[in-house]
Amino acid sequence: MSANELAAYEQQREALIAKDRALRLDNKYAGQVTELEKNADNIVRAIRTEEASTIWSAEHPEIAHPFPGMEFLTGKSIIDQTKLLKILHKMPKGALLHAHLDATVEAPFLLKAALEEPAMHVRVTQTINAQTISTTLPEFQALPVALRPQGASSICSGTYESGSWVSIQAARSSFSSELGGPGGFDSWVLRGMTINPAEAYGTHNTVTKIWQKFGSTFLVSGGFVLYMPIFEKYVREFLRSSVEDGVLYVEPRINFWFKTFVDADGNDTVSHSDVLKTFERIVKEFKAELAAEGRSDEFVDAKIIYSSLRFIKPDELVWYLEDCIEMKKEFPHLIVGFDMVGDENVLFPLKFYLKELLQFKQMQRDAGVEIPFVFHAGETLGDGTAADDNLYDAILLGTKRIGHGFSLVKHPEIMRLCRERDIALEVCPISNEILRLTSSMPMHPLPILVNHGISVALCSDDPSVFGNMGLSYDYYQVLVSSEVSGLSQLGAMARDSIQHALLTAEEKEVAVGKWTKQWNRFLGTIADGSAML
Amino acid sequence: MSANELAAYEQQREALIAKDRALRLDNKYAGQVTELEKNADNIVRAIRTEEASTIWSAEHPEIAHPFPGMEFLTGKSIIDQTKLLKILHKMPKGALLHAHLDATVEAPFLLKAALEEPAMHVRVTQTINAQTISTTLPEFQALPVALRPQGASSICSGTYESGSWVSIQAARSSFSSELGGPGGFDSWVLRGMTINPAEAYGTHNTVTKIWQKFGSTFLVSGGFVLYMPIFEKYVREFLRSSVEDGVLYVEPRINFWFKTFVDADGNDTVSHSDVLKTFERIVKEFKAELAAEGRSDEFVDAKIIYSSLRFIKPDELVWYLEDCIEMKKEFPHLIVGFDMVGDENVLFPLKFYLKELLQFKQMQRDAGVEIPFVFHAGETLGDGTAADDNLYDAILLGTKRIGHGFSLVKHPEIMRLCRERDIALEVCPISNEILRLTSSMPMHPLPILVNHGISVALCSDDPSVFGNMGLSYDYYQVLVSSEVSGLSQLGAMARDSIQHALLTAEEKEVAVGKWTKQWNRFLGTIADGSAML
Repeated sequence: MSANELAAYEQQREALIAKDRALRLDNKYAGQVTELEKNADNIVRAIRTEEASTIWSAEHPEIAHPFPGMEFLTGKSIIDQTKLLKILHKMPKGALLHAHLDATVEAPFLLKAALEEPAMHVRVTQTINAQTISTTLPEFQALPVALRPQGASSICSGTYESGSWVSIQAARSSFSSELGGPGGFDSWVLRGMTINPAEAYGTHNTVTKIWQKFGSTFLVSGGFVLYMPIFEKYVREFLRSSVEDGVLYVEPRINFWFKTFVDADGNDTVSHSDVLKTFERIVKEFKAELAAEGRSDEFVDAKIIYSSLRFIKPDELVWYLEDCIEMKKEFPHLIVGFDMVGDENVLFPLKFYLKELLQFKQMQRDAGVEIPFVFHAGETLGDGTAADDNLYDAILLGTKRIGHGFSLVKHPEIMRLCRERDIALEVCPISNEILRLTSSMPMHPLPILVNHGISVALCSDDPSVFGNMGLSYDYYQVLVSSEVSGLSQLGAMARDSIQHALLTAEEKEVAVGKWTKQWNRFLGTIADGSAML
Repeated sequence: MSANELAAYEQQREALIAKDRALRLDNKYAGQVTELEKNADNIVRAIRTEEASTIWSAEHPEIAHPFPGMEFLTGKSIIDQTKLLKILHKMPKGALLHAHLDATVEAPFLLKAALEEPAMHVRVTQTINAQTISTTLPEFQALPVALRPQGASSICSGTYESGSWVSIQAARSSFSSELGGPGGFDSWVLRGMTINPAEAYGTHNTVTKIWQKFGSTFLVSGGFVLYMPIFEKYVREFLRSSVEDGVLYVEPRINFWFKTFVDADGNDTVSHSDVLKTFERIVKEFKAELAAEGRSDEFVDAKIIYSSLRFIKPDELVWYLEDCIEMKKEFPHLIVGFDMVGDENVLFPLKFYLKELLQFKQMQRDAGVEIPFVFHAGETLGDGTAADDNLYDAILLGTKRIGHGFSLVKHPEIMRLCRERDIALEVCPISNEILRLTSSMPMHPLPILVNHGISVALCSDDPSVFGNMGLSYDYYQVLVSSEVSGLSQLGAMARDSIQHALLTAEEKEVAVGKWTKQWNRFLGTIADGSAML
């Protein structure tokens, strides 16, 4: 074996690896990477390696099998100890392209806001006691004065009448001391709005079961978010916390299934138009506040993907399609897409709505507007199931991006089309894991997508339910589960997320400009060590 | 929306799905499928659907979350109740291309064989009692008369001297009654040779931890299998049980790390040449027995992939490479490949042995023999780790097939080369799941491989450790985890496995001929219902 032969092999090997990775985003941009970025990438890789053998290899008495990329709800307390998370929290992340607005703000914030509202009331189907508390969920609603109950009552009292409303403050202050009193009330409500590790990895450890729990969280939080005084605070907090986490543009899906929201007086009469006016005003105010603080570079805008639900009948859908067009006409710069949401594994497939969805295109032409589809599709473990086949219809209907696309890797032709048409996938690592499509991040198909040249935008999906506030945790799980991907890959994904936002070319240019400034500043903080603090 | 537009959409949809699935093996053969096969495929699909909503949806008090394709060790008792398993047990499966010989025969068979051998002895590092039994493993060895202990002793006795040999029969009959007596001894030994659900899904629920348990099973069984009187029975039982499960050709990997095996008298002096002579004789006898029973159609042959281990030093490897060539010269029709085995995540990568492996090719040319590489590679969750990178070296070194290739789906260029060079993957679904590369079969990357046109041979790997005897269970897990794949896909895979065996073109023709006869007979038994009995 001559040295020449070994050298020749080494050359072939390098060429093969380069060819194999040629479709990756970080490879695409490799030529443009600055020395500063290379240096930062190396520093981050070194920290990752070190923390894998220190923090992740240490004994954690409460955690049976710690490893980087492990089950998020179990491993979060370890993640929170890492320098890597600190760095990623400061990283500029570009656009958040997949988040359900009503699950974007921390549950305690929402509860606190609700507790400040005299109109907010709660009811339950049975008296809350030690036997019923774990299986009974609170239902909240803001009530007009005329419907509010007279006198104090307790949902823990033996005389509580099933289904009768009690003011949230009264219910809280009278919550049985055996169940923890007011603090017990808070815990009970928060548990109802979130998924905990015992549920995700124990009692509900299948896609079907965890979706039941997941769906129930929206029934609890819904009564809060639909109430306009809370909605305002909620949207503001969503924007604030997004910017705090380094996100400069958000494109949430708003579920418009309820045809009206609830006004300050508790009347269920607020039109979608008024909801959007409020949203628009808050975004405007938020921008003004940032400008006043000299922080305009940190935020670009917020736009909305109008969403309906996949359990409605096709003829019911028509109302929403018409409503969506009306909203687009009234808020042309705000409504940027249309989607239908809900568990693909059990609800109707896109194909079920085919006639109406095709009609929608004609309706848009007639109205002189353009509202691209941005469909959830393939959020499933199925192979050839209706949920998996949604990918075919999403593509044929011309979707601009794919929500989740977890099963896309099984479809070579759709992958080819995604590359050809530059259709990005909105990948939600932590959501996928908690909803049991993957058991941990190393099992997630993300590296398959990345290496096959599919554009990917990392997204948080429903952070209030999963606890993955912002995008830092999702970026963390991705970074620690791959030796190939480093900071440069994450940066390229962040920049690319802006390219796949439903913005105009001019808006994208502005956003990329702001991101690039942020990015270079961020790289500097890695070099000088302040990013780790 | 006109009917025409909908019809046009429907056409586009069908064309897209067809194009997306064009690379699949069942699509490749679709034109040749007989009416009998189409009918059988439909019957099997109907049974799958029915059992999903009956057996798999029923309450199973001992099993928390039953679903088709679930964790094998937990779900096996349900699988055993299905008609689908009965059918698959009778299905002709072609070639078994990835199995480690020393883990191919049921543990109880092995223990029973060992108990019949007066030379067989056992020792432990500490007295076995209620405190030590769960953490102490037995070590077995056949001893020459001179080294056998005088008088009876018990490994459960307080006076047992750590590390001293006791005859297996004495150890068993004197096993503490508090630990279950002789039956308790058997259970303890069997537990040491197998993985149970509490280990795989509880105490050892990571790749690293379960590999520790997995590796330890070979330390327990090794002393049995290396003893030639047992080895003979073992090989015979492997062949018998393979044929019983519908396998007509086997190509086991034999681990030749021990330079000698143990003869009937307990002397550790049996050369590899004598081991192979024995193997050859047993195969010959087995064929003769089948012929005498008029069953020659059920079996073709058994050949061997010479295997070394990935923890040796490169200079130690040279001995094995030379030995392998010697064996190939002596048994040209028996030795058909070379591999190196062991946990890729912790042992040396192929690259570590590069010089020697390249030299091996020259050594073969000098000796006028040809021994293709058939490397394990990519049996890992890693992305860009040394284990994942083994795929590059396996390909560059010219591997004929890839053992596992679990991470192959992350490598578009290697996938392309696999298609171009017709390199098949030896995919071991149940092994991958128990060794925690995937949590259940619906999460397994197999459909990705199949849809991307990668040839796949389903294999059992180490059935004595995992309990997936034969290939029926692996085929079962695959069949119930995909709506796309039906019996035709499984049949195409079985036939294809023969094409990827290391046989000559003539041998393959004979094997395919036998398989085709079996297959048509099998389809008939589905049509007439006898396959379900």
